[in-house]
Amino acid sequence: MVEFTADPSHPRYASLLSRHKLEKAAEQGLLAESALIAHGRGEAYDYLLGEHTSDNAREATENALAHLKAAKRPVISINGNTTALAGYELLRVAEFLNCPLEVNIFYRTEQRINALLSHLENIKSKHNIDVEIFGREPNSRITGLKGPRAKCCHEGIFVSDVILVPLEDGDRCEALVSMGKTVIVVDLNPLSRSSKKASITIVDEITRVAKNMVNMIENHKDIEINIGFDNLKNLQKSVNIIASNYSEI
Amino acid sequence: MVEFTADPSHPRYASLLSRHKLEKAAEQGLLAESALIAHGRGEAYDYLLGEHTSDNAREATENALAHLKAAKRPVISINGNTTALAGYELLRVAEFLNCPLEVNIFYRTEQRINALLSHLENIKSKHNIDVEIFGREPNSRITGLKGPRAKCCHEGIFVSDVILVPLEDGDRCEALVSMGKTVIVVDLNPLSRSSKKASITIVDEITRVAKNMVNMIENHKDIEINIGFDNLKNLQKSVNIIASNYSEI
Repeated sequence: MVEFTADPSHPRYASLLSRHKLEKAAEQGLLAESALIAHGRGEAYDYLLGEHTSDNAREATENALAHLKAAKRPVISINGNTTALAGYELLRVAEFLNCPLEVNIFYRTEQRINALLSHLENIKSKHNIDVEIFGREPNSRITGLKGPRAKCCHEGIFVSDVILVPLEDGDRCEALVSMGKTVIVVDLNPLSRSSKKASITIVDEITRVAKNMVNMIENHKDIEINIGFDNLKNLQKSVNIIASNYSEI
Repeated sequence: MVEFTADPSHPRYASLLSRHKLEKAAEQGLLAESALIAHGRGEAYDYLLGEHTSDNAREATENALAHLKAAKRPVISINGNTTALAGYELLRVAEFLNCPLEVNIFYRTEQRINALLSHLENIKSKHNIDVEIFGREPNSRITGLKGPRAKCCHEGIFVSDVILVPLEDGDRCEALVSMGKTVIVVDLNPLSRSSKKASITIVDEITRVAKNMVNMIENHKDIEINIGFDNLKNLQKSVNIIASNYSEI
């Protein structure tokens, strides 16, 4: 692994740092085989979005945090890429919300789940964060899904009313919505199936989203549920940003 | 490695097959750490382009092949991803053109270059293809570039007049053009620096491009250099395809 030495003044520093984090996570066995390819797809969309948080993404993030705060059983579900990119920040958010975090991965192996759980436990003890983490022994299933990717923890995802589940695939997003949950996804492609099916979609990069949430919490920002929030209208604004960045040579 | 079992009738079969090939190549040590991420970026653009060869990409491909045929010292330069995705097809093209192929990689290690060269030699002997392959001992430098990525082979890239160099980065593309070469790149992002700097840019997926070239050769298609070819105009057509696919939810 080459050490990360990019200059912080480099215009694409954040993107290069994320790439480095993912490569390191792959070496540590935190990621599935397809994780780096998925990250690359995200990079392409983020580039088209200008690699910053748009106004509509910030609006969606605030609304998401307000829903999580108001929830009775909120939960944050994270996969390998999310753990590698924003594990620390999301543990901070979970601590503030007093909610559990569930490691829930599509391609589950014991080795990988253990690597992810110890990675998160290390962050917890290093930063003295008190959050319950589920995922080692999934004892329940997401209704309507077949096979191993239906697996979840009863006290985590299953009983939740509001779920923050970044980087989710379309099928699972749809199934969670059908269970009556408020489903918040983070997805850089505003036209993906997850983006369109979720209750609230934050079209932004997960590291920025998690940092924005931590900032909102630390600054005691007065956040209220936006009852007029229209997810498709919010998505259309991100589509427009991409279209306007992609018009001429 | 999970065996590849997708149904060929799956609408995204080709994309899934490419992904599988790349994951396998990564396991075999053919790829740099950033290769899968780069492939993911390509996937995102290909999705936006509709995952097929557009008319303007076919036009660029024909023109590229015509230039290669008319060249005095044509060369095909390939990296890890290109080798994994289209090594066989590009060996066929090189044999037809009676030109050498040079394995030229950005992050060069002896282990990786040897893995790539044996991979290609295996294809050659399996399919009885007669092509000279350079790359084991770069003995020259691309003018105007610093560091290890300037390395090239004198009898390959250095003396070439027309070079097909898929998936090239912007700096190298620009340096090769400055050396007076006709530089043909394959890039799925029509707005990348390589795309804009190259003499001819084929905005298409490398597997499809290589297969298209083999088909043109096998069908003895009458191909002539298009002297009116305007690379930026051709690129604009791909930009328009993306913009039209990205307008509404």
